[in-house]
Amino acid sequence: MKTARTQHLLAAAALVGVVAFTFNIACAQAADPLPSWNDGPAKSAIMNFVKVTTDAASPQFVPPAERIATFDQDGTLWVEQPMYSQVMYCFHRVGALVKEKPELKDVEPFKTVLSGDREAIAKLPMADLEKILMATLTGMSTDQFQAEVKQWFAEAKNPRWNKPYNELTYQPMQEVLTYLRANGYKIYICTGGGQDFVRVYAEQTYGIPPEQIVGTMGGTTYGYDKDGKPFLTKDPKLLLNDNNGGKPEGIHLMIGRRPHAAFGNSPGDQQMLEYTKAGDGARLSMLVLHDDAKREYAYGPAQGLPDTKVGTFPQALYDKAKKEGWTVISMKNDWKKMFAFEE
Amino acid sequence: MKTARTQHLLAAAALVGVVAFTFNIACAQAADPLPSWNDGPAKSAIMNFVKVTTDAASPQFVPPAERIATFDQDGTLWVEQPMYSQVMYCFHRVGALVKEKPELKDVEPFKTVLSGDREAIAKLPMADLEKILMATLTGMSTDQFQAEVKQWFAEAKNPRWNKPYNELTYQPMQEVLTYLRANGYKIYICTGGGQDFVRVYAEQTYGIPPEQIVGTMGGTTYGYDKDGKPFLTKDPKLLLNDNNGGKPEGIHLMIGRRPHAAFGNSPGDQQMLEYTKAGDGARLSMLVLHDDAKREYAYGPAQGLPDTKVGTFPQALYDKAKKEGWTVISMKNDWKKMFAFEE
Repeated sequence: MKTARTQHLLAAAALVGVVAFTFNIACAQAADPLPSWNDGPAKSAIMNFVKVTTDAASPQFVPPAERIATFDQDGTLWVEQPMYSQVMYCFHRVGALVKEKPELKDVEPFKTVLSGDREAIAKLPMADLEKILMATLTGMSTDQFQAEVKQWFAEAKNPRWNKPYNELTYQPMQEVLTYLRANGYKIYICTGGGQDFVRVYAEQTYGIPPEQIVGTMGGTTYGYDKDGKPFLTKDPKLLLNDNNGGKPEGIHLMIGRRPHAAFGNSPGDQQMLEYTKAGDGARLSMLVLHDDAKREYAYGPAQGLPDTKVGTFPQALYDKAKKEGWTVISMKNDWKKMFAFEE
Repeated sequence: MKTARTQHLLAAAALVGVVAFTFNIACAQAADPLPSWNDGPAKSAIMNFVKVTTDAASPQFVPPAERIATFDQDGTLWVEQPMYSQVMYCFHRVGALVKEKPELKDVEPFKTVLSGDREAIAKLPMADLEKILMATLTGMSTDQFQAEVKQWFAEAKNPRWNKPYNELTYQPMQEVLTYLRANGYKIYICTGGGQDFVRVYAEQTYGIPPEQIVGTMGGTTYGYDKDGKPFLTKDPKLLLNDNNGGKPEGIHLMIGRRPHAAFGNSPGDQQMLEYTKAGDGARLSMLVLHDDAKREYAYGPAQGLPDTKVGTFPQALYDKAKKEGWTVISMKNDWKKMFAFEE
């Protein structure tokens, strides 16, 4: 009887094992990789894209090495209102700048920024903004710049939520990053923001390493300090403006492959989405429409939404998306949850 | 007896299992990851670097995400004599160029290249070489360029060995790439050659994907063909000359992290090796010295080796390496085997 009983126990144990194993597989299959998304065309487009590009039996299968996805940052991965975080940083740095160079405090546009007069600051023309960007983003070593941005980022808060910027990433988009990564996609940010600026916090904020940040690029110059130690100085020399046509140009420069998926939210992303969609096989191009004034912001002017100073989504872009087969993500309708900190 | 015999058999089987397991571990430990290297300071430097940066208990442990190694290409990973492969490609393309633009065939420097007069070609000044490079490497779409280089690479042969270029990679360096990769290092080529040129064959030749090629970078322009399909045109605009100080500048632009290991063979690599070595913790900087005229080439003028038109290794670089703690690899003494095709 002992032998029979042992056999029975072993068989039972084996069966439990098989059941547990099967249950685990079933659970893994059933678990929703995008729980903050409502069911609808946007969620379906993402899920279907991943399915057909990662199933080895699919005619649209993409080999792992070629799985590249690019994401705009401001307005696509995190809040861009009331002002791009990098511009907030530059305004903040003007204070430190005039401490080093006191003669600048009575010189425009620095004088206006120091006044704190928000209306006057908002009216500064592009040429003045460029002066502020050049003065605060260049002229120091890359190490010093990294340290300064890191410190600002640890302390700065978005004025509406009074929360650090990295808590204002969209939870549904974080889920897309995780889902694509779990399916072998290499994720790049492709931003109009400064490449060196975004690199400082992207790993902590999105799990994206410095070498996978494509942004607006400035030159550096190699040199030596007084002890002969080498360092790089950030130059006021623009190598590539990573907006509009500059996005595919930056992707070619930094990656050398066409993405299979691209996400944006404004006319500056149009060419990246076109370039992505123009490749063969399955390609996913998506645009985030800010149509949720209650939970975030609402701005178009597409679909009759208000026009804003920062960020825009013209009706022409909306129409192009529909015509080209890009999917528009409605924040209001497609996102169940906006931020991780929500209940 | 049956039970005792069964127990004995089980014990024996278990013992065989343990022995086999132990044997496998011992074999794995004993297997030499660098079989084409002779024992000596160069091989020891590489093995020791990998040991101290990947052992979690080591004070010089480097987290996997930060394991970056950069390699110069020409003269470091493959043969650069009698001429850089990219220059051979450009000379080859002059033929196609004059078919498209017949008026160029009587214009210098194209006329000299078409003459096939090797001595006259070798005497062309740098400004003429640049004219040839610009005329043959720019002006076409990135897709067309890739297709042209791919075709050339499939047919071109090094004149001394009459073998395709990708068979003339150094077997000991291929082993270093494999060994570093197996230990979590992300490998980048950092070459003075054209970034787009090297990308075409680097995956096939070294297992290095396009996004891990840092090279001399030209601009591109986004546009549309007659059917409205987007494409990128290669511009005659230099963004970064990836030589000398340009190497650390290119590494910062493309990777955004300082390498932990760097390999070169000429003064154009000096700044990359300095920059790498100047980081904290364990850093490996190595220089390949071509001192084996029999199996490959011998050129200095360091250590009394002959000076050559293509490639150089001045005594000052050799002295700097010794002073800075970089390791010089003697091809003659450190490499047991030069090429994979050798017996």
